[in-house]
Amino acid sequence: MRTLHSETSKLVANCASLAALLEVSAYPKPGNIHRLNDFPDTSYEHFLAGSVALGSVMGELAARSYVNENYVNTGLGKGVLDAVNEIFEWQHGGNTHLGVALLFAPISAGAGKWHRTKSKNITELRNIIKKVIEASTSDDSIYIYEAIEKAMPSKNLGKAEKLDIQDKKSINNIKNENVTPLQIFQLCKDRDQICHEWVTGFETIFETGYPYLKSRLNDGTSVNSAIVDTYLHILSINHDSLIARKNGVAEAEKISRKAKWILELGGIDSEEGNK
Amino acid sequence: MRTLHSETSKLVANCASLAALLEVSAYPKPGNIHRLNDFPDTSYEHFLAGSVALGSVMGELAARSYVNENYVNTGLGKGVLDAVNEIFEWQHGGNTHLGVALLFAPISAGAGKWHRTKSKNITELRNIIKKVIEASTSDDSIYIYEAIEKAMPSKNLGKAEKLDIQDKKSINNIKNENVTPLQIFQLCKDRDQICHEWVTGFETIFETGYPYLKSRLNDGTSVNSAIVDTYLHILSINHDSLIARKNGVAEAEKISRKAKWILELGGIDSEEGNK
Repeated sequence: MRTLHSETSKLVANCASLAALLEVSAYPKPGNIHRLNDFPDTSYEHFLAGSVALGSVMGELAARSYVNENYVNTGLGKGVLDAVNEIFEWQHGGNTHLGVALLFAPISAGAGKWHRTKSKNITELRNIIKKVIEASTSDDSIYIYEAIEKAMPSKNLGKAEKLDIQDKKSINNIKNENVTPLQIFQLCKDRDQICHEWVTGFETIFETGYPYLKSRLNDGTSVNSAIVDTYLHILSINHDSLIARKNGVAEAEKISRKAKWILELGGIDSEEGNK
Repeated sequence: MRTLHSETSKLVANCASLAALLEVSAYPKPGNIHRLNDFPDTSYEHFLAGSVALGSVMGELAARSYVNENYVNTGLGKGVLDAVNEIFEWQHGGNTHLGVALLFAPISAGAGKWHRTKSKNITELRNIIKKVIEASTSDDSIYIYEAIEKAMPSKNLGKAEKLDIQDKKSINNIKNENVTPLQIFQLCKDRDQICHEWVTGFETIFETGYPYLKSRLNDGTSVNSAIVDTYLHILSINHDSLIARKNGVAEAEKISRKAKWILELGGIDSEEGNK
């Protein structure tokens, strides 16, 4: 017999893996990895393995959150670190899914509780996710720092004025001052989209990405094209923070303008947009 | 705390999903679905979803087999039906993985027991799989018939002289005469590769596919090209039974000769072979 929380675990695990797979497979995504574009040390196949690997961790996070009556101790930070460890266990192409793990962990923990309420209301899911994030503690911060340090090559990390990941004193400061993930992500919300999502209760995902993706799918657009156009739509509004850190804000803004232009031509399915 | 059988479950679930993903993604595979070739009603994305969906069922099968001291009641047939149900639950592109489920179920049940022995010897795995198959009963046969009937469009099924799937009397005959999967697959082993694998203890997989794939990967061939060349290698030895049923044996044999020729030119990575 399956228990209810093991049903939740399977559901969230499969959703997490499938979302990661659909995202990395969608093509063409300019400047990004996809089914026909490998990075020098990281291939599409590494991302397939990483997508599978992170599923079970997200499922467990959801199941723990399902049985936990409270919002404290959902194990959000530990979930991010576990996901990073699994990703490195299942492939050798380096960091494939740190960003995804940071985004999916609060969503998965929230989804576990949401599934228990039997609600289908997406705004309720968002509210639960916000509460999960608000209840996270300095223990979560420390796990998240460990995960980021393990996954990210330092050249892609950038440098922070306060609580820099590469500064050995940061962990002590987090412990001594009980710094929560929310306080940390406040510091970087303007230069990093993931920090921005945590701080705003996943504003881009709930207010931009999800409604746009849904409407494109409802219009009969293929899954692949709907995902690519959603990526372009988000890019046209917010410049990509990884591109900005690597190649400067001007370059990132140029790419945003280009994304907007492709969508104005009719998106990736149109002859003009696809050029 | 994770129990040992839940570790087995995760391991086998991830392996099953990842194997299915790598297989369907490998390209170009002439005549077959892959990352750039959709079928009319079934897209690559449907296969991504099906690959994720079948994982948890294979993991559960392995975990049940891990805790079960005997070879009877591993739930092989039920595993195939559960996998088919999950596959249809998670996508609407029709049958994506019936064949894979039929192949992966005995391997997964065997892998559960093999994992418990802590052996790394692949011949021992094969011996365990053979015992699992030999212990399967008419109950497994009935579940397998149910799975095939649910998944396969009748036009692709072909017609059998004895125990035809579309003949309503077959289920009664299986019950009354205690017909095991092994007895059924004996009847079709010469015209269907999956039946052949069950009857021979996975001869093609253990003696042809696995050693060839392993040697190509050891040579430094990319994962994608190694899989495509393994597919061609198997095709050059045995003609494809689905192509034979759909387009005749002569066509299937022509494709086998072509596969052999591509490999003789140096495989899919060579300029000549890729043409």
